[in-house]
Amino acid sequence: MKVSLAELKQMYKPKLKPIIWDNDNNVLTLLDQSALPFETTYVNLKTPEEIASSIKLMKVRGAPAIGITAAYGMVTALTSSSISTLDEAIKSLNNAKKVLDKARPTAVNLSWATSNMLTKANEAINNGEVKNVKELIDLLKSEAKKIFDEELDAELQMGIYGLEKINDGDTVLTQCNAGGLATGTGLGTALAPVKVAQALGIKVSVIAPETRPWLQGSRLTVYELMTEGIPVTLISDTTVGLVMYKNMVNSVMVGADRILSDGHVYNKIGTFKEAVIAHELGIPFYALAPMSTFDLKNTVNDIVIEERDPDEVRTVRGVPIAPPGVKVYNPVFDVTPPKYVSGIITEKGIIYPPYDKNIRKVIEK
Amino acid sequence: MKVSLAELKQMYKPKLKPIIWDNDNNVLTLLDQSALPFETTYVNLKTPEEIASSIKLMKVRGAPAIGITAAYGMVTALTSSSISTLDEAIKSLNNAKKVLDKARPTAVNLSWATSNMLTKANEAINNGEVKNVKELIDLLKSEAKKIFDEELDAELQMGIYGLEKINDGDTVLTQCNAGGLATGTGLGTALAPVKVAQALGIKVSVIAPETRPWLQGSRLTVYELMTEGIPVTLISDTTVGLVMYKNMVNSVMVGADRILSDGHVYNKIGTFKEAVIAHELGIPFYALAPMSTFDLKNTVNDIVIEERDPDEVRTVRGVPIAPPGVKVYNPVFDVTPPKYVSGIITEKGIIYPPYDKNIRKVIEK
Repeated sequence: MKVSLAELKQMYKPKLKPIIWDNDNNVLTLLDQSALPFETTYVNLKTPEEIASSIKLMKVRGAPAIGITAAYGMVTALTSSSISTLDEAIKSLNNAKKVLDKARPTAVNLSWATSNMLTKANEAINNGEVKNVKELIDLLKSEAKKIFDEELDAELQMGIYGLEKINDGDTVLTQCNAGGLATGTGLGTALAPVKVAQALGIKVSVIAPETRPWLQGSRLTVYELMTEGIPVTLISDTTVGLVMYKNMVNSVMVGADRILSDGHVYNKIGTFKEAVIAHELGIPFYALAPMSTFDLKNTVNDIVIEERDPDEVRTVRGVPIAPPGVKVYNPVFDVTPPKYVSGIITEKGIIYPPYDKNIRKVIEK
Repeated sequence: MKVSLAELKQMYKPKLKPIIWDNDNNVLTLLDQSALPFETTYVNLKTPEEIASSIKLMKVRGAPAIGITAAYGMVTALTSSSISTLDEAIKSLNNAKKVLDKARPTAVNLSWATSNMLTKANEAINNGEVKNVKELIDLLKSEAKKIFDEELDAELQMGIYGLEKINDGDTVLTQCNAGGLATGTGLGTALAPVKVAQALGIKVSVIAPETRPWLQGSRLTVYELMTEGIPVTLISDTTVGLVMYKNMVNSVMVGADRILSDGHVYNKIGTFKEAVIAHELGIPFYALAPMSTFDLKNTVNDIVIEERDPDEVRTVRGVPIAPPGVKVYNPVFDVTPPKYVSGIITEKGIIYPPYDKNIRKVIEK
């Protein structure tokens, strides 16, 4: 089935709404992800301080989602206080940027979004595009909306390209949560094709591995797909092999945290095992990620795989599952060599092997 | 390094003692496995009723361990009450068998052990081998000890054969707990080679995946190896691929619940993924199991893989990790085709491909 981005936007909106901006009342409403999947609660936020606190408390998480949230955080710097001059506005935006950036100092999308908003404000004032605070607020609102809309458009486009790889009745195996909770749009990357398929009346279901140690699969992917009304089956991470062996899986679709120019895909720990088994059993394996995920500078020898707190493995939601002192290896990511990757689905199209040639081609397009 | 069974028995006893029989005081002491790994506590049992209750409460688990426990349960039928005639003794043994068999009605090793003890008693009385209750008690004690000793000898022998596949400094990846807790001897099957290696001064370490949903890896394998003083690293099930990719694993050694005549290996869910990745990366993969594991009657199409309660996947130690109603697929075992199995290590030697010929050869030997 063929559908254009414009057509798709007419007929489909994600049911899941992790970030909602009320443009009349200047209120940012966040789905509290720290309470998922056990409680669906929303928090209403009106000031940069409140928004920074929500970021800090992981009520919102995922790089793109934090970026969108922070952009609206900058808007509230102007809407939550009575500011009469543009000088005061810039001062207030500078303060808000400091407050927001501090909420998660290592989140690149956060400081990118706040810098972008501040730069836009300064430029618009300097070139006379805005003449008063009201005009500045309108401009920043449309900037924040643009960040959200561009993210959603890219994901819809990935969904449209991914659709080529889904047949009616298919079951897709995923890993972790490369969904609309993490991106903030409600759609997501790896989950975009199944959501778009469902919207077009194509029957599709998903198998979600729980994804220890953080359980993004059982907590977030399952919640997200249930919200969207897409049939989902939860499995332990031990079961990924058997579901492929038993022909219960038509394709594997995962997200990516970083993709090198030769096609090495870095993604949540556990992705590599799915890729190898899929390859061995002749099941196509796709990584879905926006163009911003490509890292053309580094090679596989440059990338150090981050390790996290051993207690994440020794416990589950605070409950011990192993002898307290046991040695643990707890890497966050693994790396899937290009030979196991059938295609990389981006908002610019699907990239096929040989990746060392074709990735650069698409980027330079 | 070469070592004979006799030599090994001289120099090595497992430190882990899940089942201890006090022959002077007629007390069976069990390591309470239901409290592991958080508490190391022992229960002292003197009657068939107490022993049946411990089996029921999973204080002892694992097929061979339950068999050994039940055999001593039969002994206590005679030692825990004042019986003066052989007729009374047989009546008491019949009662004890009923009590014990009911503790876990589906445990084949349990009813096998109680039947075996009862048969031996009847035979010995009928052929005049025993003349009074004291002599019958001595005979049954030595029968129970024989069941234990034969189990341990088989495991030591597997350890000796498995030693051929371990080099100094090796790291072995396992799965689940095919150790001495499950067999009751303290040694185990898949863990026998590393324990024997350690006893001979060969440096060896183990990587143990947690093995969701039951966490036998994090709860039992880790405890068992720490008790034995063997370096062990716990990983999430998602990490099995990366540790092999990063050359942290020299071989994979797992147990088996059933092995078909063509070499298909049924074992705890998650085994298949390790086998495929090991095969792809050129790492040898061994299944370790006694000859009693071979099933020459059935083919891969005959075996139905048992599924268990979905709540095992929806929760961890009683704590929810997913939306309550989510659909779950929770198979207990998976099946590894022979092409991924480098060798099957038994107490009679190592069996190599082609399995459809070589398994029968060893059995008929």
